[in-house]
Amino acid sequence: METDRNHNSPDIYESLERVTALLQERQSLTDLGYEATPEQSHSGDQNTAALKILASLQALLDPMHPADVAYILEALPLKDRLALWDLVKADRDGEILLEVSDAVRETLIEHMDDHELVAATGQLDTDEIADLAPDLPSEVIADVFRLLPPEEREQLREAMSYPEDTVGALMDFDMVEIREDVTLEVVLRYLRRLDELPDHTDQLFVVDREQKLQGLVPINRLLVTDPDVTVGTVMTREFVQFNADEEAAEAASAFERYDLVSAPVVDDSGALVGRMTVNAVVDYMREKTDSEMLSAGGLQEDEDIFASVWKSVRNRWAWLAINLCTAFMASRVIGLFEGSIAKLVALAALMPIIAGIGGNSGNQTITMIVRALALGQITRDNAAKLFAKELSVSALNGLIWGGVVGVFAFLIYHNWHLGLVMMLAMMLNLLLAAFMGVLIPMTMDKLGKDPAVGSSVMITAITDSGGFFIFLGLATLFLV
Amino acid sequence: METDRNHNSPDIYESLERVTALLQERQSLTDLGYEATPEQSHSGDQNTAALKILASLQALLDPMHPADVAYILEALPLKDRLALWDLVKADRDGEILLEVSDAVRETLIEHMDDHELVAATGQLDTDEIADLAPDLPSEVIADVFRLLPPEEREQLREAMSYPEDTVGALMDFDMVEIREDVTLEVVLRYLRRLDELPDHTDQLFVVDREQKLQGLVPINRLLVTDPDVTVGTVMTREFVQFNADEEAAEAASAFERYDLVSAPVVDDSGALVGRMTVNAVVDYMREKTDSEMLSAGGLQEDEDIFASVWKSVRNRWAWLAINLCTAFMASRVIGLFEGSIAKLVALAALMPIIAGIGGNSGNQTITMIVRALALGQITRDNAAKLFAKELSVSALNGLIWGGVVGVFAFLIYHNWHLGLVMMLAMMLNLLLAAFMGVLIPMTMDKLGKDPAVGSSVMITAITDSGGFFIFLGLATLFLV
Repeated sequence: METDRNHNSPDIYESLERVTALLQERQSLTDLGYEATPEQSHSGDQNTAALKILASLQALLDPMHPADVAYILEALPLKDRLALWDLVKADRDGEILLEVSDAVRETLIEHMDDHELVAATGQLDTDEIADLAPDLPSEVIADVFRLLPPEEREQLREAMSYPEDTVGALMDFDMVEIREDVTLEVVLRYLRRLDELPDHTDQLFVVDREQKLQGLVPINRLLVTDPDVTVGTVMTREFVQFNADEEAAEAASAFERYDLVSAPVVDDSGALVGRMTVNAVVDYMREKTDSEMLSAGGLQEDEDIFASVWKSVRNRWAWLAINLCTAFMASRVIGLFEGSIAKLVALAALMPIIAGIGGNSGNQTITMIVRALALGQITRDNAAKLFAKELSVSALNGLIWGGVVGVFAFLIYHNWHLGLVMMLAMMLNLLLAAFMGVLIPMTMDKLGKDPAVGSSVMITAITDSGGFFIFLGLATLFLV
Repeated sequence: METDRNHNSPDIYESLERVTALLQERQSLTDLGYEATPEQSHSGDQNTAALKILASLQALLDPMHPADVAYILEALPLKDRLALWDLVKADRDGEILLEVSDAVRETLIEHMDDHELVAATGQLDTDEIADLAPDLPSEVIADVFRLLPPEEREQLREAMSYPEDTVGALMDFDMVEIREDVTLEVVLRYLRRLDELPDHTDQLFVVDREQKLQGLVPINRLLVTDPDVTVGTVMTREFVQFNADEEAAEAASAFERYDLVSAPVVDDSGALVGRMTVNAVVDYMREKTDSEMLSAGGLQEDEDIFASVWKSVRNRWAWLAINLCTAFMASRVIGLFEGSIAKLVALAALMPIIAGIGGNSGNQTITMIVRALALGQITRDNAAKLFAKELSVSALNGLIWGGVVGVFAFLIYHNWHLGLVMMLAMMLNLLLAAFMGVLIPMTMDKLGKDPAVGSSVMITAITDSGGFFIFLGLATLFLV
């Protein structure tokens, strides 16, 4: 919370512009043949200038929050980014690495030697080291383990043992634990001996001798209660707790639902093993949203905007390849009807309309069903109702928009048979879209796959090939 | 936080199943001609059964958190939903209305009379009433204003005056304010007189006589500091604060960046007017994500999964209409080349490949640029670099995938001229997609529009029509 008094994001944008300007000045000096680091100081005006630039950069960076430095690093092209990274004081490396995006973190870590990396982890808590671990070389991890005191080594081993997207992977170990039989007076004296409470300490955890969680005491209750009563009489015995193996998404929605700031994490035996805080939830939600947006847009992962061309091409590869396959399939469906198209070339101009609108409509259905599945709103009882509803919506849309495209076809080609076929094909493709739009995500969910991934590609493939087949098939039967 | 000890979302799913089963039992009794409410009690076995069902439902609902009741209401078809709504104790109506989605809230409010609605707001804080206000009939709002004490009336007026998506619309008024010149002892005594501190009170706000914000005292510091010192000596003078007119998104990213639990909101003169908490931020983030997902899927707004067919049709209307227009446009572009297609019918089968992959590639670029814009990573200095990078990625992709489709065309139609034209068309359409994929969102951002909305429709329209034009144009020049 120790940031500039008048926090305001425009300030960060200004800092970014200033950093960019200073780096450019520095670059133009370097281009003239002057190189300056605080250690070596030649004489000469340009050299003084270079040192001045360095000092200004340092003065700008030093008071900044690690998250703000991370933002600036992300917004700089690779060369400038690494130049700036060299200037960041070594004792903040770790905190900043935690804040940058995965893609940018990779570029920074590549630029550091093992010794620097081990030093960087020295500033971090064990749960934070565990967050970085997947990006660190294995020698570095081994060194880190060797240097930690035994208790923390155990914590790190535990934190690293939980799969991504579980509560265990998001928890930290900064709990304040108290016993049930002491008075609040004793608790208050204990707290006063700590210099500072861990961030996000809104409650204390009451455990017994076996470390089993018995209850919670909200910090605020400490302030408004008579200090002579015992912990046992004021503690809350009904509360939200998570199991370390639970899915992070479940925990996040509990935080959202019950407005939590922190919550205890227990193991299968009910022993307190860690704590989850709302800031971990906020970060998790942001990352989840980001990766959903990226995969909806056809990107495999978070892409550094200044990634090399080759890296970007690989990031977009898989999606384009899949789409190419479905496009080839659709193309072969059309190929089946080349004879009909040769006889009535208007079919070629009209067919993309049927396929396109079918795809849009199918994606609307999928979006709704995927969301309802994520919220747990779909049960055995209401699934049939949903099918009926989506099919009705499509039938109505088919009637309306089928009519519109039918009239469009008639107006342009003065052929009312063609108009009727257009209308019928539109209706059938929208029904197909609705049916598959409900079936695909529900089946994926049943099979234990994430319905948000891939549903959209599948429905588009089906409405494209299906739309072409329906329209050209009907046209072949009735028109040519 | 007063929820079931073993919170676990599966419990909620079970509750939903139980509620559904009970409502069905009740329905089958009603179908037999028995109607039971707690007030009227006929004799007879079925009647006792009906009362028993009611009692079970009541016993299930009463201990549930409002957010959990809201979840169950959302997952029930309209008729069951309203039946359950009638059973919810009147003194929880307000809290539950706050928790349900906008679409479901509408259905519940329609079912309540003005008197019930006014009573429901009686349980809420003024900032919560302001959240409900847009959905309430104006007579209800007028009544609510009349019934509030003057100070709260002023708060409500203020809360309602801020546009959606500003800090003012998300803030609450539950601040604990203290003076700079008193000792912590005095503060502690003052707090002890309050029965309970407001939720999410992690810090106290220090204001002067003109209500100007001077500093903050973290609650945790109260616990670890000698009570004899004055507020002025321990308060933090450097902190994050927001202006009530500021955009909510800016505030949300500051909460995320600096791991805040609460933050003061001031007016232009620096006077404390409210407080923003992390739970408001979490709700805001969730809503924002939801609406982005929905609009990416082509839905105008949050759709109740049990909305009437007619309501759903209207919710999906706009998007389909827009897409129909762009499809008609693409169709007319093809229409221009009907002569060429008649001569070489393979063109009809191949053209959707060019258009489709162009659309995918354009959407990848847009996704990346929209994200970089949202994160503020694009500056005047790096825009040119981004254009160059995206065009290079497309050129490389064009070479690779253009080659693949060229070979595909050759293998099927044994015409290497056709293969070359396919390859060239693919490259050109991918370059068009990259160029427009950078240009469209950056232009929208420059014009002050949200680049996430509509960019995808525009790029698809361009790569469809453009792809058909490029491919069929090249074919007309070189092949027929």
